[in-house]
Amino acid sequence: MFRSKPKMDIRDVKNIQEGLKGIYKNKVKPTEEHYMFTEFHSTRLMDSDFDAKPMVLLLGQYSTGKTSFINFLIEREFPGSHIGPEPTTDKFIAVMHNREDRVTPGNAVAVQPDKPFRGLEMFGGGFLSKFQASECNAPLLEEITFIDTPGVQAGEKQRSGRGYDFTQVASWFAERADLILLLFDCHKLDISDEFKKTIECLRGHDDKIRVVLNKSDMVNTQQLMRVYGALMWSLGKVIRTPEVARVYIGSFWANPLHYTENAPLFQAEQADLLRDLRNLPSNAMIRKVNELVKRTRQARVHAIIISHLRKQMPAMFGKSTKQEELLADMRNVFEEIQRANKLPAGDFPDPEKFVQLCRNMDFSKHFNKYNAKLINSLTEVLDKDLPALMTRFPPEVLSGEKAGNSADVILSTDMGFANRITQ
Amino acid sequence: MFRSKPKMDIRDVKNIQEGLKGIYKNKVKPTEEHYMFTEFHSTRLMDSDFDAKPMVLLLGQYSTGKTSFINFLIEREFPGSHIGPEPTTDKFIAVMHNREDRVTPGNAVAVQPDKPFRGLEMFGGGFLSKFQASECNAPLLEEITFIDTPGVQAGEKQRSGRGYDFTQVASWFAERADLILLLFDCHKLDISDEFKKTIECLRGHDDKIRVVLNKSDMVNTQQLMRVYGALMWSLGKVIRTPEVARVYIGSFWANPLHYTENAPLFQAEQADLLRDLRNLPSNAMIRKVNELVKRTRQARVHAIIISHLRKQMPAMFGKSTKQEELLADMRNVFEEIQRANKLPAGDFPDPEKFVQLCRNMDFSKHFNKYNAKLINSLTEVLDKDLPALMTRFPPEVLSGEKAGNSADVILSTDMGFANRITQ
Ligand SMILES: Nc1ncnc2c1ncn2[C@@H]1O[C@H](COP(=O)(O)OP(=O)(O)OP(=O)(O)O)[C@@H](O)[C@H]1O
Ligand SMILES: Nc1ncnc2c1ncn2[C@@H]1O[C@H](COP(=O)(O)OP(=O)(O)OP(=O)(O)O)[C@@H](O)[C@H]1O
Ligand SMILES: [Mg+2]
Ligand SMILES: [Mg+2]
Repeated sequence: MFRSKPKMDIRDVKNIQEGLKGIYKNKVKPTEEHYMFTEFHSTRLMDSDFDAKPMVLLLGQYSTGKTSFINFLIEREFPGSHIGPEPTTDKFIAVMHNREDRVTPGNAVAVQPDKPFRGLEMFGGGFLSKFQASECNAPLLEEITFIDTPGVQAGEKQRSGRGYDFTQVASWFAERADLILLLFDCHKLDISDEFKKTIECLRGHDDKIRVVLNKSDMVNTQQLMRVYGALMWSLGKVIRTPEVARVYIGSFWANPLHYTENAPLFQAEQADLLRDLRNLPSNAMIRKVNELVKRTRQARVHAIIISHLRKQMPAMFGKSTKQEELLADMRNVFEEIQRANKLPAGDFPDPEKFVQLCRNMDFSKHFNKYNAKLINSLTEVLDKDLPALMTRFPPEVLSGEKAGNSADVILSTDMGFANRITQ
Repeated sequence: MFRSKPKMDIRDVKNIQEGLKGIYKNKVKPTEEHYMFTEFHSTRLMDSDFDAKPMVLLLGQYSTGKTSFINFLIEREFPGSHIGPEPTTDKFIAVMHNREDRVTPGNAVAVQPDKPFRGLEMFGGGFLSKFQASECNAPLLEEITFIDTPGVQAGEKQRSGRGYDFTQVASWFAERADLILLLFDCHKLDISDEFKKTIECLRGHDDKIRVVLNKSDMVNTQQLMRVYGALMWSLGKVIRTPEVARVYIGSFWANPLHYTENAPLFQAEQADLLRDLRNLPSNAMIRKVNELVKRTRQARVHAIIISHLRKQMPAMFGKSTKQEELLADMRNVFEEIQRANKLPAGDFPDPEKFVQLCRNMDFSKHFNKYNAKLINSLTEVLDKDLPALMTRFPPEVLSGEKAGNSADVILSTDMGFANRITQ
């Protein structure tokens, strides 16, 4: 069960990453810009959007072993890590790869263009002083970034003392994470109000949530069953999905086991966890490909819409009347475009939102004419470039074998393309 | 952990039982009758109310091993038991003790005065033809009665074919049971709609519910953890209490284990289950004592109320006016009685209900005068006879050590008395 090698070499992943970046920069971005895609849809993609490593977010009550867990996985202590029975970690810490040890305070991290944390500025200085990047040299960090977090404590005190909204910050990271690990330990099963609120804010990310029952060797088997049962009993009520969250049961640090009777179970669970972590880079890469597919399809439809609207505009008089007419009739205009170009309805934006966004634009002045070369370049990306890139994934990664990770779910949201690619 | 002997000898239990019966018949019942207690409160207690053995009700989806479970515990096949992979048991079966094997059909069982199933007549012939008593000679049955039930199946078909309301019948037994075992097996975790409805009807009996995860040896440890976790995840949502139900994990039949890796766990769990079952008779006896304490206190207050009301009545004229006056003022009358006699408010009935019940009685004619001997006999029962009986319980039974059984809960509903007894 335990695979000592990741399914995909980190170099393959890097290769695909560079391929994606090139495709976007050379063939998608120019068309996006020509037709003002980012004014209508999401912002322009940056290099850091492609480069960012899969992120694993750790959340849990204090002292459940989050920091120890990271140190165990990266097989060393990350700079600035503190471990202790009392609440120790008091910052959000991005544990990342670097050849040299380095600790960078949050204010600096948030402005570094090569790090995916610029969005954190919105939480202000109160939060940034409680954020840092801890970089160090560890093989696993070449593939994955960990986010260590301050342990949740029960009671009001801590919350008011923090100076930022823990739940909101945790949600920000959860949104961007590829995996969210909720840590519990056999002595601390309680889900405090704040932790409960945090878990509730993770709704919509259920497919990314995994649970770790840590320190499982500190109790005997019967006690472990009671503890684990109690955890599931209450977690089911908080997470609320009918699908049961995957729990990794074990002791995630380097020390020897206290009760050894379940050693085989803990070993198997650890192997599963490591395998799932090691699959993250290729899964994240598949997700990025899928996201670029989706974006390119939207961009193509967008370009066709914009150039179509431009074409409807009269050369000289009655421009504003015509534009009003088009705005009022956008739903039908979309349907006409869809039929004429045989485009999938799902790639079209919501007509009302679209109208709202371009109400104050001047169709004749701002909208560019149909440019076959630019628009065809998108078709080429979808029909040739991205499928070619996908062939570089090993087949077992693409077939999405149920490894308890989120790749399956993500892939299935875009079956059309995935099918075309894999057939 | 495993105790080969029950905490209390079955003879001690029988002794206390006879003691209780005697106290009730000789000292409580005469006063109850004199003051028409049963017209206001619960019906008169029968010998069978004292004699009835603790009842263990088994419920579960079909084929989870309910019938095998009973046969395993009583160490023989009870007459009329059928075991098989398809739905087999199609009746409610009371598995009871008798020196000879005997199967009695439901219609006959429901009229036997020595069996506690007379109430089942209310479900009619449609149900009674699906009910039977299976008596046989097995040591455990001298202490406990088991109720085997038809396994719940998914889907509409079965329900309409039954001819009685499964959920209602199950609730009837649950009400009278001392322990309710919900059986699941590792291959059949599903909680069908009907089973869910049945579990929901058990609300209010949460303290009696235990869960059995049967056939736990049919999967390996990791699979067992997943199965068990999934069970707790969904059970928590159905049972809804914050307190986690106790689950006994194991394989409850005589066959050897399939996967043996968890043999020590299964042995410990089995020992716990047996211990909890063996505690049932003494726990049930404690409950019966508590119930008699409660009833005697109510009967005493009732006798004082009735004789007080009688005393207020004029000898000759104006009777009905006085009675109306008393009826209208019952709340104050009660408070007056309470103060004058220093009685606990909790022993008083609801004045409105009381008024409703005696509105059509004639206080002068139906209500008896104060009879010191009769009323003092109740005080004596409370102050001497029952405490003396309680001394026959071994101390560890009374201290209600947390054995995961319902005795603690039951005792704590009547702390006043329990305290007096044990101090
Ligand atoms: N697998 C383990 N088994 C037993 N004890 C552990 C394990 N991992 C960590 N501990 C102990 O638990 C305590 C808390 O560990 P650690 O500081 O890593 O937790 P944390 O979740 O990061 O806490 P905080 O939220 O306060 O940062 C320490 O005393 C540590 O030695
Ligand atoms: N502990 C066990 N481990 C494995 N298999 C078992 C175990 N107990 C019973 N079985 C098997 O499961 C099947 C069902 O058993 P049984 O008839 O006792 O279940 P049941 O719950 O009484 O079913 P029904 O609801 O239909 O009466 C049988 O094939 C039996 O051999
Ligand atoms: Mg920490
Ligand atoms: Mg059966």
